[in-house]
Amino acid sequence: MHILTADQFSRKDLLALFQAAKKLQTSKKLPQTMKGKILATVFLEPSTRTRLSFESAMLRLGGQVISIPNLETSSMNKGESLEDTGRMVSTFADIIAIRTPEKGQVAEFAKHSTVPVINAGDGMGEHPTQHLLDFYTIWKERGKLDGLTLGLMGDCLHSRVLRGMAKMAAEFRIVIIFIAPKEVRISDDIKTALNKKKVSFREVESLDLVIKELDVLEVNRIRKEYFSDKKRVEKIGKQFIVNKAIVQKGKKSLIILDPLPRINTVQTDVDSLPQAKYFTAVENGLFVRMALLKRLLN
Amino acid sequence: MHILTADQFSRKDLLALFQAAKKLQTSKKLPQTMKGKILATVFLEPSTRTRLSFESAMLRLGGQVISIPNLETSSMNKGESLEDTGRMVSTFADIIAIRTPEKGQVAEFAKHSTVPVINAGDGMGEHPTQHLLDFYTIWKERGKLDGLTLGLMGDCLHSRVLRGMAKMAAEFRIVIIFIAPKEVRISDDIKTALNKKKVSFREVESLDLVIKELDVLEVNRIRKEYFSDKKRVEKIGKQFIVNKAIVQKGKKSLIILDPLPRINTVQTDVDSLPQAKYFTAVENGLFVRMALLKRLLN
Amino acid sequence: MHILTADQFSRKDLLALFQAAKKLQTSKKLPQTMKGKILATVFLEPSTRTRLSFESAMLRLGGQVISIPNLETSSMNKGESLEDTGRMVSTFADIIAIRTPEKGQVAEFAKHSTVPVINAGDGMGEHPTQHLLDFYTIWKERGKLDGLTLGLMGDCLHSRVLRGMAKMAAEFRIVIIFIAPKEVRISDDIKTALNKKKVSFREVESLDLVIKELDVLEVNRIRKEYFSDKKRVEKIGKQFIVNKAIVQKGKKSLIILDPLPRINTVQTDVDSLPQAKYFTAVENGLFVRMALLKRLLN
Repeated sequence: MHILTADQFSRKDLLALFQAAKKLQTSKKLPQTMKGKILATVFLEPSTRTRLSFESAMLRLGGQVISIPNLETSSMNKGESLEDTGRMVSTFADIIAIRTPEKGQVAEFAKHSTVPVINAGDGMGEHPTQHLLDFYTIWKERGKLDGLTLGLMGDCLHSRVLRGMAKMAAEFRIVIIFIAPKEVRISDDIKTALNKKKVSFREVESLDLVIKELDVLEVNRIRKEYFSDKKRVEKIGKQFIVNKAIVQKGKKSLIILDPLPRINTVQTDVDSLPQAKYFTAVENGLFVRMALLKRLLN
Repeated sequence: MHILTADQFSRKDLLALFQAAKKLQTSKKLPQTMKGKILATVFLEPSTRTRLSFESAMLRLGGQVISIPNLETSSMNKGESLEDTGRMVSTFADIIAIRTPEKGQVAEFAKHSTVPVINAGDGMGEHPTQHLLDFYTIWKERGKLDGLTLGLMGDCLHSRVLRGMAKMAAEFRIVIIFIAPKEVRISDDIKTALNKKKVSFREVESLDLVIKELDVLEVNRIRKEYFSDKKRVEKIGKQFIVNKAIVQKGKKSLIILDPLPRINTVQTDVDSLPQAKYFTAVENGLFVRMALLKRLLN
Repeated sequence: MHILTADQFSRKDLLALFQAAKKLQTSKKLPQTMKGKILATVFLEPSTRTRLSFESAMLRLGGQVISIPNLETSSMNKGESLEDTGRMVSTFADIIAIRTPEKGQVAEFAKHSTVPVINAGDGMGEHPTQHLLDFYTIWKERGKLDGLTLGLMGDCLHSRVLRGMAKMAAEFRIVIIFIAPKEVRISDDIKTALNKKKVSFREVESLDLVIKELDVLEVNRIRKEYFSDKKRVEKIGKQFIVNKAIVQKGKKSLIILDPLPRINTVQTDVDSLPQAKYFTAVENGLFVRMALLKRLLN
């Protein structure tokens, strides 16, 4: 089984995975179930956080790692097809985590792989394990996912994180509020999917209007490259920064998440607040990835 | 002992290595004979296939790996000599696999190394383990090497793979047919070596003329950079592509090999034919490299 | 505890570390005390020697390694702060060795790290483990450090190695002779620190004047970029090259050290002399780093 998209996880899958992750995280000694197994990390677009998280998870469970840390060191810059690269790498490893610059390339890579492939981000496509760690963090903090209100703030049109969070939230009774400038509103394909699953959602253009309602706020940056009016993007950018002042207007139990690295999103004055869970989420990610590796290989 | 050239393997060496590789490949559990040993992979010219193959082989046998995956991350771009780099790396590892951009650089690197050095490709020089996996694949498929007819097709003048295959084939009673445009015919040094060893060989300019005779076809690309007449190279290039139609004119037992990545050589419509052994060869390479690591370190 | 500067090691610390390193170096089988532990090597400025030395030390003690081998593969080129990167990496590893291009950046990185951070070079700042291996080498060769005369030759103003060696030497009764062109003399901050500790030192402009007195000569290159008069730097450069002729004017027991890579410093005709200890020091470095990893993690 490959892990390619947020869509492939059912509510039952997710809860089982979170239970397994928690069991690992609270165990005194990690089981060495990956002994003799090799993870290949293939990062044709660099990402230290995600790569090191997968590698550390594998090593902590007793496995080993081989790596293509960037395109530079890959045969692909000799013109090899992704299908051939995937087939080749699957000869040398038992499982593969791959990031690619373009959408759809992970699926292409996985086509001839003889071992499980995990999508660790395919451009504007998907990055399903990011949602796993965010939802695992919410579930751990609140003990549940049903009944919560989730704010997804930033470039809802282009961000694979915000789009994917919405799709995965639909497995639970979660109310979604998209907070985005009108230029980069959530797209119709996501809205249609949510309507089909009878998910309550609405759209606003400012965090101020909804901060009091939110149980969870996932933040993602506004990308200048998608705005023609540079003055406007600068003004908007400021409205989408999360600082201590705005956080303190919300619930005390608010959970703030950011996929990191943070670039004009959450300010450092938020770091010491109990609402700041983005660093906790990085640590949680280690265990949810361990649980995923175990599920795919055992 | 260093592994620097195809020349250093006798018929007896090769057969012993192939037996050892097969024993590893058919064993239920790989022996952990490399436990406590470290392989350094030094790739001053990137190659994911060869690097990951060596690393996976080492890890599968219980060893560990340190790596310089490209020149960028090396002290050599501060101007360190290859001799000093070799001496230094040999302090940190028990065995080294190295690829360099220029011919002769691996030997230079090995000069002061206190541990075995394996040439994983030195520019237009040699790449002996590539031949090991190709001949191992033929030996495994056919149960023998003597009596076969081997086609070596492509840029016979510059390709280290085609040149090295010819040299290693000379250890067996193999008939060689060089298939190359006249601009990049096999060079006199190889012909002299073959004559000395009484190897039967001939030269043709088109696969069509000999496809029916071949037991094995090793394919390597025509490199545009060696042709002044660009129109001619385009025309020639097309004649040196291997597709389903031409394969089906040959023997049913034909073995097609390509060192990969394939660039205008074997077409994907060949992949599903039983004659296509280039992916099998990648897998076999893992075990022949394990056998080599064991032989050099035990 | 972080390892950030040469200043933090007392005489007692150093001798304990050297004893521990020697015990490791003379043991028949290395203790596997790092089993289950992960070292992260973060090299935002590449250095194969230092990186591979740390990685090999960790693996030899049974630990594992994750790595950011260069800035290219890091999230930092997306604009992540060093504080956030440090916090993130410390989630995935038990100990971190980091090199940065600018002075002070390692301390910044260590600020939020939840695990020990070792400074493996921060630009013109510090590189404390380099001194550890140099002093360990002297201690091993001579059985003592007190009473020796140490020449520090090269760019005493900018070289973190020469500056740090002076600071660490002050823990022992070592006489220091700085050998530097007047343009790059040792700076006042170091002189003040040495005077405070009642260290005997003097300054000369030529090795010839003091070669007979030295027990140890640490060599570092003259960097052209710090001289406006290019003719002068060329002339000076030649005077700061160490060859067989000058070495043979010194004591037979002279110990020559060079942090390597050597660029217009020690000539290869010195390599075979018994005075050449720079390659021995590389090997010793492996064991002093093992001792340091053990001390920080056990």
